[in-house]
Amino acid sequence: MDHPIRKVALTGGTHGNELTGVYLVQKFLAHPELVQRESFETLCMHTNVGAIKQCTRYVDKDLNRTFTLEALNDYSATAYEDALSKVINQKLGPKGSDETAVDLVIDLHTTTSDMGLSICVSTKDPLTWQAIAYAKAQIPELNIFRWNGDTDDASFVSSIPPHGITIEVGPIPQGVLRADMFFGTEKVIQALLDFVELYNSGEAQSYTEVEIYDHVTLIDYPRNKEGAITAMLHPTLQDNGYAKVSKGDPLFVSLEGKDICYEGKESRYVLFANEAAYYEKHFSMCLADKKTIKL
Amino acid sequence: MDHPIRKVALTGGTHGNELTGVYLVQKFLAHPELVQRESFETLCMHTNVGAIKQCTRYVDKDLNRTFTLEALNDYSATAYEDALSKVINQKLGPKGSDETAVDLVIDLHTTTSDMGLSICVSTKDPLTWQAIAYAKAQIPELNIFRWNGDTDDASFVSSIPPHGITIEVGPIPQGVLRADMFFGTEKVIQALLDFVELYNSGEAQSYTEVEIYDHVTLIDYPRNKEGAITAMLHPTLQDNGYAKVSKGDPLFVSLEGKDICYEGKESRYVLFANEAAYYEKHFSMCLADKKTIKL
Repeated sequence: MDHPIRKVALTGGTHGNELTGVYLVQKFLAHPELVQRESFETLCMHTNVGAIKQCTRYVDKDLNRTFTLEALNDYSATAYEDALSKVINQKLGPKGSDETAVDLVIDLHTTTSDMGLSICVSTKDPLTWQAIAYAKAQIPELNIFRWNGDTDDASFVSSIPPHGITIEVGPIPQGVLRADMFFGTEKVIQALLDFVELYNSGEAQSYTEVEIYDHVTLIDYPRNKEGAITAMLHPTLQDNGYAKVSKGDPLFVSLEGKDICYEGKESRYVLFANEAAYYEKHFSMCLADKKTIKL
Repeated sequence: MDHPIRKVALTGGTHGNELTGVYLVQKFLAHPELVQRESFETLCMHTNVGAIKQCTRYVDKDLNRTFTLEALNDYSATAYEDALSKVINQKLGPKGSDETAVDLVIDLHTTTSDMGLSICVSTKDPLTWQAIAYAKAQIPELNIFRWNGDTDDASFVSSIPPHGITIEVGPIPQGVLRADMFFGTEKVIQALLDFVELYNSGEAQSYTEVEIYDHVTLIDYPRNKEGAITAMLHPTLQDNGYAKVSKGDPLFVSLEGKDICYEGKESRYVLFANEAAYYEKHFSMCLADKKTIKL
């Protein structure tokens, strides 16, 4: 093992109204022994402090889209999150450096969508994927989503250091804590920290494959000329995360009660359906393939 | 029947991130025939337009607490909702007048709590209670909650005219539409409008009793000295609206996993548990009695 992991950051409140991460960080700050291991240090911190105070997703813009190298090097942008991302990048990075302040970020998120316990990942970094495969082996109900999303470059908090993972759990309303999801998230964190300890001691098993949901496309709600939504997620897809849809299956129901069906030729899996924060981004759901990939 | 109901208002977006009412009003504005009847007019309107635009509960303060007569007569208060309440009072009231612009307000709300289809009511007005009893007879799963809440005087939008009803449905995250709850709310609206039509034609049956949940008290989350929440709703009460709790039953679980139990002598029913907007109001739940009241 050439590069041990010496410092891990657990970050919460990147979206200020996703309380699970906010309160897990509060818990770990009060009980640091829960996230310490012998071979590395763990830093726990709130990221979007301004948004946490307001219990909003963000103050001016989505912090978790401000960590592209281009955005980090753009000093003309002066929104709260544009400035904050530079500060966080100094604390945890700087991104792209050979000597980042932390080696691994685990960023804690929730969604109103029925995603269960899930990890969102967009890096190709092999060690990150080994950590994910280890967590999946410990927690079989954990879902792995390879996000190839709405920005060209990696833009998440978790993209700052060489290794980075975003935990997404749901369904949880914004501004709400759910005990089951809180302790579920903690279980995923513990598995990831256990992996790092094993890796640092040279005892980590090497995984050769893992099952994932692989991002294909994002689709919007039906809208009218003024941009207002004219249909809702179909009841068959509500509370039914990772449902498989095939041509002719209903995706939406109009406000008037008419079904609107999936027209694609390929069957896909539905992820992130009815996430509150994606209404303004014009996403109703992500369509994904399910596959086992080689590591 | 001395006083026919000549004008009904259907109001949505009193809390701007409760989208069910916002989009039901959008639907009814596009299809006014759905809410018209022969004997009365129906006015459909968005109330907190500023909050709807931001998809937030409110701009400056909770609009649904600004309709006490004292607040309506206080011209020193200049927050957005303080000003807006005067405008709405002119459109629908004025409150306390013998000649209000509308006779009945049906105000549309959602909650992140597992309230199912429910009506919140704090008026003693007999005709309002007849309308509620009629709706309950048509829709047996409808729950009636007599709110005796967090203000001394009636402060809701629905308190402006002589007759007023607040519909609450959930669980729905803020900023999200759910088809089941959308059509469920519409069913309650239709039942209430049907009642008005029957009443105006002298054909309404007279109900003598109805089963309700009667507000007893509001209780807060456990908090630390800094005011931060230190425990979550217990999993046994999550997704379990109208659960009965008796002495010794768990109400909360601490962030560290320790149960915190109900200490009251009387068994009560749990309503509005884990409503997002009540975190800042310092309510975790309402405890209520279940009873059948005479009308």
